[in-house]
Amino acid sequence: MKFERDNPPRWFASDNNASVHPAVMAALERANRGHAVGYGDDPWTARADALFKATFGRDSESFLVWNGTGANVMALGAVLRPWEAVACAETAHINVDETGAPERIVGAKLLAIPTANGKLTPGLLEERLAPFGEIHHSLPRMVSISQPTELGTVYGLDELEALGAFCRARRLVLHVDGARLSNAAVALGASLLEAAGPADLLSFGGTKNGLMYGEALVFLDPALAAGAGHLRKNVLQLASKLRYISAQYSAYLGEGLWKENAARSNAAARRLARAVEEAAGIEPAFPVDVNAVFARIPPESLAPLARSWFFYPWDEKAGLARWMCSWDTEEEEIAAFAADLARQVRGA
Amino acid sequence: MKFERDNPPRWFASDNNASVHPAVMAALERANRGHAVGYGDDPWTARADALFKATFGRDSESFLVWNGTGANVMALGAVLRPWEAVACAETAHINVDETGAPERIVGAKLLAIPTANGKLTPGLLEERLAPFGEIHHSLPRMVSISQPTELGTVYGLDELEALGAFCRARRLVLHVDGARLSNAAVALGASLLEAAGPADLLSFGGTKNGLMYGEALVFLDPALAAGAGHLRKNVLQLASKLRYISAQYSAYLGEGLWKENAARSNAAARRLARAVEEAAGIEPAFPVDVNAVFARIPPESLAPLARSWFFYPWDEKAGLARWMCSWDTEEEEIAAFAADLARQVRGA
Amino acid sequence: MKFERDNPPRWFASDNNASVHPAVMAALERANRGHAVGYGDDPWTARADALFKATFGRDSESFLVWNGTGANVMALGAVLRPWEAVACAETAHINVDETGAPERIVGAKLLAIPTANGKLTPGLLEERLAPFGEIHHSLPRMVSISQPTELGTVYGLDELEALGAFCRARRLVLHVDGARLSNAAVALGASLLEAAGPADLLSFGGTKNGLMYGEALVFLDPALAAGAGHLRKNVLQLASKLRYISAQYSAYLGEGLWKENAARSNAAARRLARAVEEAAGIEPAFPVDVNAVFARIPPESLAPLARSWFFYPWDEKAGLARWMCSWDTEEEEIAAFAADLARQVRGA
Amino acid sequence: MKFERDNPPRWFASDNNASVHPAVMAALERANRGHAVGYGDDPWTARADALFKATFGRDSESFLVWNGTGANVMALGAVLRPWEAVACAETAHINVDETGAPERIVGAKLLAIPTANGKLTPGLLEERLAPFGEIHHSLPRMVSISQPTELGTVYGLDELEALGAFCRARRLVLHVDGARLSNAAVALGASLLEAAGPADLLSFGGTKNGLMYGEALVFLDPALAAGAGHLRKNVLQLASKLRYISAQYSAYLGEGLWKENAARSNAAARRLARAVEEAAGIEPAFPVDVNAVFARIPPESLAPLARSWFFYPWDEKAGLARWMCSWDTEEEEIAAFAADLARQVRGA
Repeated sequence: MKFERDNPPRWFASDNNASVHPAVMAALERANRGHAVGYGDDPWTARADALFKATFGRDSESFLVWNGTGANVMALGAVLRPWEAVACAETAHINVDETGAPERIVGAKLLAIPTANGKLTPGLLEERLAPFGEIHHSLPRMVSISQPTELGTVYGLDELEALGAFCRARRLVLHVDGARLSNAAVALGASLLEAAGPADLLSFGGTKNGLMYGEALVFLDPALAAGAGHLRKNVLQLASKLRYISAQYSAYLGEGLWKENAARSNAAARRLARAVEEAAGIEPAFPVDVNAVFARIPPESLAPLARSWFFYPWDEKAGLARWMCSWDTEEEEIAAFAADLARQVRGA
Repeated sequence: MKFERDNPPRWFASDNNASVHPAVMAALERANRGHAVGYGDDPWTARADALFKATFGRDSESFLVWNGTGANVMALGAVLRPWEAVACAETAHINVDETGAPERIVGAKLLAIPTANGKLTPGLLEERLAPFGEIHHSLPRMVSISQPTELGTVYGLDELEALGAFCRARRLVLHVDGARLSNAAVALGASLLEAAGPADLLSFGGTKNGLMYGEALVFLDPALAAGAGHLRKNVLQLASKLRYISAQYSAYLGEGLWKENAARSNAAARRLARAVEEAAGIEPAFPVDVNAVFARIPPESLAPLARSWFFYPWDEKAGLARWMCSWDTEEEEIAAFAADLARQVRGA
Repeated sequence: MKFERDNPPRWFASDNNASVHPAVMAALERANRGHAVGYGDDPWTARADALFKATFGRDSESFLVWNGTGANVMALGAVLRPWEAVACAETAHINVDETGAPERIVGAKLLAIPTANGKLTPGLLEERLAPFGEIHHSLPRMVSISQPTELGTVYGLDELEALGAFCRARRLVLHVDGARLSNAAVALGASLLEAAGPADLLSFGGTKNGLMYGEALVFLDPALAAGAGHLRKNVLQLASKLRYISAQYSAYLGEGLWKENAARSNAAARRLARAVEEAAGIEPAFPVDVNAVFARIPPESLAPLARSWFFYPWDEKAGLARWMCSWDTEEEEIAAFAADLARQVRGA
Repeated sequence: MKFERDNPPRWFASDNNASVHPAVMAALERANRGHAVGYGDDPWTARADALFKATFGRDSESFLVWNGTGANVMALGAVLRPWEAVACAETAHINVDETGAPERIVGAKLLAIPTANGKLTPGLLEERLAPFGEIHHSLPRMVSISQPTELGTVYGLDELEALGAFCRARRLVLHVDGARLSNAAVALGASLLEAAGPADLLSFGGTKNGLMYGEALVFLDPALAAGAGHLRKNVLQLASKLRYISAQYSAYLGEGLWKENAARSNAAARRLARAVEEAAGIEPAFPVDVNAVFARIPPESLAPLARSWFFYPWDEKAGLARWMCSWDTEEEEIAAFAADLARQVRGA
């Protein structure tokens, strides 16, 4: 099976390349009747709010926004004053993939910490934050972790608890970037709330898992939500026709779509890792906890392979590739890709 | 006919309370197949780009964003350095309705100018900008007008030309906030490009005219677009699954939807103004150029009327109300509303 | 006596054109011995801190900064989140004369209010703030007044009290820009603390009254000072060799210099106003409460007069001039200026 | 000789703990006569400007500001748009010691690079900047180096040239943080201009070398200075009584004070390093190129020694200390300190 970029089946570039799940399209159609008050004062948003409270606790406060970068920046902006700092992994989306939006919009400092596998630990934080405290340095006030990480690894519940204890002891606010939290929850066999651990606030995404657009910022500590209504508009994250985001999240949370789709993409990644290992003898570079497979292949194979199967080389020099599975990844694509990869690598 | 807020027909609060036009839903369904590269490198966006060039000139550069506030802030951010200023009408959306997003995100100064009808003129600008020039004052660099204005008035082509000449002579960049540009174009019997006049950059909206979400920032002067790719992400305006915005704009521009919908809402507003005048003897406060009707009614009638017909009082003390028509406003709603208004006013 | 710009005696352009008072130079010399720990942990700053507490209350917290714009911006930055707003007079220094620094650095919105004489009142505030409250508008959180105003008028103690009551009732923080607070206190026959009224925080200046550089941000409500140590550095306002600012303020507050100098410049302005009236029949445009005289003269006289006596026309079209007196203004300069003015006006 | 903190001779904490050189005090006294136009339009500033042009080239444009952090932030703000990035050493003052002011005020991203000795190289830059280019990452636009570095090392002229060539080839703007440039120039036996290498813009300091306050931002590439007059005020760096900074820089540049003072502190550091080595057998951790001595001592000796001789431990765990010499460091203090250190270390 040859990959045709302009007449595409599916590929492994990103879970945001996938289409929208039919149940979401159906929810959008159902929401499309009559007038609804703008900016959230509508029955669809009321329903979504109730589902968010059922999912994340009745004291939680959720705000639907446009996208994950928006949710993350709004989270930082809700907590940080511009002389404060947030610690994060060097690989964190807020540090690498948001074109400096946190610095521009929040103005605070990111303290990026190198890690082995995308995960922060109390020990890494302790060391990085030790020199701080003087007025000449930004004041550490927040820790942001990604669950799962950008390297496809998942914090265990005990690891989350240890980070929570560290943050409480140091009076640091804990933020979880959960753009793919559903995948982590499925991997842990846990609820979404459990997978977020002791987070004080959570960016909760669905676009990478079958939705069309829209993410949520969930204040698990509602005290942090003071002013958040204004803040959302102030950081360009308030949709006028909000019902169309709300309707998607009602389907996502109320019909179990988060779990069904994440289970499918996680399983696909496990199959992909196995197929690659069997066909080409290549083992994953990190544990395949969720729907990402990272692997090192001969660097000269990266470009030829990416020509027929669109994906992103993670580190060209090192030959590190990332292959993402989606809710719609099919068995036959996995097999075809593994076979192509094996041919490429053997030829290299 | 009694208005039921929780089982809504349609009302006159805002054109963003309306539903999504069926042709847009159909376009979304058609776009929902297979994988598409994220962030705009997809066939739907290529098609939309071509239509934008056909509409706004082949040298223009368009960037799809989340919403109108995002388009406006990105426009200011593309032009202004933080020590510069933009002049606008006191009623401008950027000044009144964006919760300070321009100040927060661009950091520049807004020079708000009181107007009679929402329109700036060379004379008003000349007077306001006269004292500037010293290093103690922000440097005027940009003029932003709304076409149509927030008061439902439309700049004539000659008025636009006069503003353009003023801006060229003073080396000021001209921005047009065209959240409802389609309505202005229909009112003028002009093309979208003509209705934008000599704008250097344009916020072009569709959400108030039948789309679900997504607006565009159009650089009519492409020299201003340097860096705009990074800027869009940097101000939280880059959608990952961009094809779903692109597909909407392809329907909007390619199938004439902008014109059809705007013509309907403009006509509805004219009918509404006439019905109100006939039933209650109340004349519009401003010319009904597009789909907004402003009228002064006895202040004590505002609240009772808004209880049965949801709308926003514009100035409670003055009894100034705003009634917006939409692409889906029906004849019978206009008649029923006018009758209720007449009863209310006579009783007041 | 002919004015020679390059061999200057003194003129009436600004009180910041004056030289440094000899007692301040002496204080600087005295502080110039041995090493002192940088950034404020030194005996001179300890002494200044004690004097600030003696002046503004023992719970107050003072932070020395570089200049008045720095103090003002730090004041706004200590209080406002970027989705909040500060109300001020249209003529306020923060609105007109700081090249947009508040917008750039704090990101919040300024709600500028036209006034008759530079003074805000509860009525003006009430009207301006009425439409606010929705998430689409910046949230009013602060009121900033200048004491004295930029038009040389002084708030009476009762006027201050009325503003304080308004702010308390509306939960607004009250900031006083006291770049010339000493002049206001002398005018009122009041202490500096009384002249600041019920301010929650105060920009307190000395540079226009005989110092070389350095101003203070005084938190009269110390709860607002949380984080101010970091904030000062974060907004570029922390001097390394802080003792040299501290030594000046010790002279200013501890040796009564603030009062002596302000009394001299206030008296000079009264004499100037009288001399102008007697010589040219021109009355002041505003009450001469402090060291500024505003007057309307024939517009065509502005430029010729400013050629021999350097000063700033306030409004060229209206012929409104501002003449400032300083701690070092001499009787004979006043007489010579009034005579020249009279000749000019009669000739006009 | 016992150190008395409250009756201080001199110590080794920082060169900004030193007093002001008598020639600077004399210059301030000379400038203190009559009125001078504020904000730089005065004869003292004209004289300083001429000296800056004589020093840094007649096309250069210099702007006096309050302090080094102000000069650095203004430099970044003159060049960077918020979606751009500046690369710097991890130890750079802009990254570590400015409480996040660059992020807050400029909004751009800092790309911090670990180094062995505080110096960047083309190789380090090449590696760090390689992954950039996509719209999801801030666009590298500037490189900032410190000359000398915060670790007391000096870039050789060839090293500067190599960085310049790299920046030109990559179209990156080169900024030099020259808070102690005078010390580097003396170390290199070079002029100030030569010591700044191929910099496009330069933060040039004097406060650590005998001045009271004030630094300069020098645009060696004057094309970058467009708007700098407004920018200076906009980032809180414009002094009203500017003549008092200008007078200091006239003494600094025109009377050779920069060279005399830097030669003294550099020599003192060399003597200190030798004395420490002779008395305690401890070698410097980095080359003693300028007026800083870094050395590793037993970590348990840090605190006791710092109690009698105030200084800053650089890395407490590693026992790394920093001792700075100043223009006023005396021979006998060096000897006494070395003896105390030897006692402490032998006792440890």
